[in-house]
Amino acid sequence: MTATEFLEQHFDLHLDLLKDLVRIPSLSGDSTRRSDMSTAAHWVRDQFSKIGMENAAVVETDKHPVVYADWLHANDQPTILFYAHYDVQPVDPVGLWESSPFEPTIRDECLYGRGTSDDKLGVVTVLAALQALLATEGSLPVNVKICIEGEEEIGSPSLGKCLEQNKDRFACDLVISADGGQWSLDTPNLILGLRGATSLELKVTGPSGDLHSGLHGGAVLNPLEAMARILASLRAPDGTVTVDGFYDDVDPVDPAAEAAFARVPFDEEAYRQKLGVPALHGEPEYSTQQRRTSRPTLEINGVWGGYQGEGPKTVIPAEAHAKITCRLVASQDPDRIFERIQDHLKRETPAGVRSEVTFGGVNAQAFSMPLDHPANRIARWVLGDLYGVEPYACRIGGSIPVLPVFKELLGADTLVCGWGTPDNNYHAPNEFIPLASLRRGPVGYVKLLHALAGADLGTRT
Amino acid sequence: MTATEFLEQHFDLHLDLLKDLVRIPSLSGDSTRRSDMSTAAHWVRDQFSKIGMENAAVVETDKHPVVYADWLHANDQPTILFYAHYDVQPVDPVGLWESSPFEPTIRDECLYGRGTSDDKLGVVTVLAALQALLATEGSLPVNVKICIEGEEEIGSPSLGKCLEQNKDRFACDLVISADGGQWSLDTPNLILGLRGATSLELKVTGPSGDLHSGLHGGAVLNPLEAMARILASLRAPDGTVTVDGFYDDVDPVDPAAEAAFARVPFDEEAYRQKLGVPALHGEPEYSTQQRRTSRPTLEINGVWGGYQGEGPKTVIPAEAHAKITCRLVASQDPDRIFERIQDHLKRETPAGVRSEVTFGGVNAQAFSMPLDHPANRIARWVLGDLYGVEPYACRIGGSIPVLPVFKELLGADTLVCGWGTPDNNYHAPNEFIPLASLRRGPVGYVKLLHALAGADLGTRT
Repeated sequence: MTATEFLEQHFDLHLDLLKDLVRIPSLSGDSTRRSDMSTAAHWVRDQFSKIGMENAAVVETDKHPVVYADWLHANDQPTILFYAHYDVQPVDPVGLWESSPFEPTIRDECLYGRGTSDDKLGVVTVLAALQALLATEGSLPVNVKICIEGEEEIGSPSLGKCLEQNKDRFACDLVISADGGQWSLDTPNLILGLRGATSLELKVTGPSGDLHSGLHGGAVLNPLEAMARILASLRAPDGTVTVDGFYDDVDPVDPAAEAAFARVPFDEEAYRQKLGVPALHGEPEYSTQQRRTSRPTLEINGVWGGYQGEGPKTVIPAEAHAKITCRLVASQDPDRIFERIQDHLKRETPAGVRSEVTFGGVNAQAFSMPLDHPANRIARWVLGDLYGVEPYACRIGGSIPVLPVFKELLGADTLVCGWGTPDNNYHAPNEFIPLASLRRGPVGYVKLLHALAGADLGTRT
Repeated sequence: MTATEFLEQHFDLHLDLLKDLVRIPSLSGDSTRRSDMSTAAHWVRDQFSKIGMENAAVVETDKHPVVYADWLHANDQPTILFYAHYDVQPVDPVGLWESSPFEPTIRDECLYGRGTSDDKLGVVTVLAALQALLATEGSLPVNVKICIEGEEEIGSPSLGKCLEQNKDRFACDLVISADGGQWSLDTPNLILGLRGATSLELKVTGPSGDLHSGLHGGAVLNPLEAMARILASLRAPDGTVTVDGFYDDVDPVDPAAEAAFARVPFDEEAYRQKLGVPALHGEPEYSTQQRRTSRPTLEINGVWGGYQGEGPKTVIPAEAHAKITCRLVASQDPDRIFERIQDHLKRETPAGVRSEVTFGGVNAQAFSMPLDHPANRIARWVLGDLYGVEPYACRIGGSIPVLPVFKELLGADTLVCGWGTPDNNYHAPNEFIPLASLRRGPVGYVKLLHALAGADLGTRT
């Protein structure tokens, strides 16, 4: 029996495992769920142990544990580290769920429940693939480690430290992130890049208390006006960021990757209509797709100050506030960009007010994975074969902060290869996966691991 | 017995009347106090009737009544309309009052209670002066009408309509506003001008819903950035308002009034320190005193949009909001300025967003009273004699919307002449008057009415 046949025969088992895991309400952001988090971590360890993975362990961190296991008997073969997470997003608003979020339910060949897609599908898919290989072949074609964390949905605060303290344990040639997905049920895709981020809070202060605009209007600079002036200075009217040196470290885009990315379907007018804006907007020398995925950006996420209630209040407020985040691309350094924006904000602060800039809580390196990386070449072949369609090669504008951490701490690139699709309502009510995703994913990993056997991943020297 | 001697002998009576009126919680903004408002109006009417004023009436309006009375037997003499109000500000935070706001209490030669200064002092001072004259002289030196409203603290929504419907009844040559005050217990002042106002709300909309800045950042114009750009365009960095035609109708300032105003003590550095700003700011060709009193201004009173909570949220918000008010000077028309700013805001709205401008709820003409107006010349002499000090001649940056209404509907200028002082905690806990204010005020009005007899006020043709 081949691994693929094993998977066909054991589909119901794997579906039951996914249901079992979905039933554990592993809400990492809810401090009352610590014991559920521990239950989930031990469930994951036990399952990997049962199928024949070795050294299975629940590695404690400052918050929620990381699950480790390995199988390292493929001599002279590369070592692959599977990354996934067992924690889930909150379920609010719970009233919008058609079935209870932690009671997995099948409707129309889909499994509904919180985490069915993000990322318990990832955990179970890796488990099923490794089980199939070990059960039918008695070994794995490459060395495999797993790193399944419980803090992805709260920004992975402990993972970096955990990897740093366990560098040897987690050492590998390639990470495969089972957190990720495919373009659609019909079309696979490779991820060439994700943006990084940095963030700032700006506080502008004028008078020591709110002033009556009748008695004092005209005498002082209004902090709200000063802030408007400062914020307006951050970008040119055409959308170009005007912060000194902001674009200095932006890597030029590989023309082959650009050509591959251009194949991804994108209808500007449909996109404009979907967003509901009167016109798309941004750096004129780049396309909308490039601007939202491959170019850095600077956004004001919130502003407040003065009176926000009904009717008038003739006040000159003492303070004005803004939240700013940037999306960054390789090789921009978030700390350096933070400093450059901080300098800009300080320099643009007019004499009549004071300003204070603080860290806004988001800091992430951009992630990039060359189109011609050996893992991408192999994945293109495997996914193309599996779907019968050439994968798209995408850059995505969002951030997965943990991926650059693998590169930084372990020296390993990451192949993002999960099996969910963008329509899965992750982070929303009625999260689901088509059962087809759970059928296809383990077969994909089996083929991928076979294909990686003997590959030169260009790492370990 | 002279009227002045009568006032000395009856001080306790007038203090008791003020206490009685303070005990009525005439909170115009509190809909549960309608019967107290009616009680206060009838109390006022009855008191004026008792002292010999004629045609005393409670004139109903859409909300709180206006009290009218007259004495019109001074043939060939001008007619003076006393304006005051019987309603009071809210008392919150009530815990900060040292004695109950509606239980008048004497401490250290001061009377404490809500309305003791603003403006029940005005009501009782007029009453006492007229009583003293009628009791000792059997007549008044000029014709007198009273107009005591109950909506001043909520913006006088009914007074204009009431005056319009009763034009003949309220017709006069001069209004004396008993709502107002003196510079200090030692120094009197004349008010040459108060600013008008207009107000707008700005709403800037971009995408039809909040967007994820990772997935869409770079593709659209952020409404918060657009609003910053629009708001920053309203004034030059030096404080000059850049709205087309904003200064067109600003009257040049009378040099004599300017010279008189320059006598008013003002220490820029002490003022700067009191406000707590690093530097004062505004149109460079005008002094701080001029800017805050005699020049129009445009202030942003509040802004909001996007995420204001703790920590980061990487959102491009769908909307941004701002509240704007202007202080205006004679002869700026608030409606015309509104339109000019509206046009400016529309013109400065970039293509990637939409904007909407609505009326902000404040609209008032500026008030001005020439330094050499006959009433000002007479008041200068009377107040100078009463205090032993030449009065200051001030312009004040705030607005009293009702004063220009008298000019518009009755054709009468207003002498602002009350007896409270700026330290009286009106609109705050522990409102009070020194008993000296109640002693001096009625004497002042007696002298003023005598001095106005035979005066040519330059109105009635």
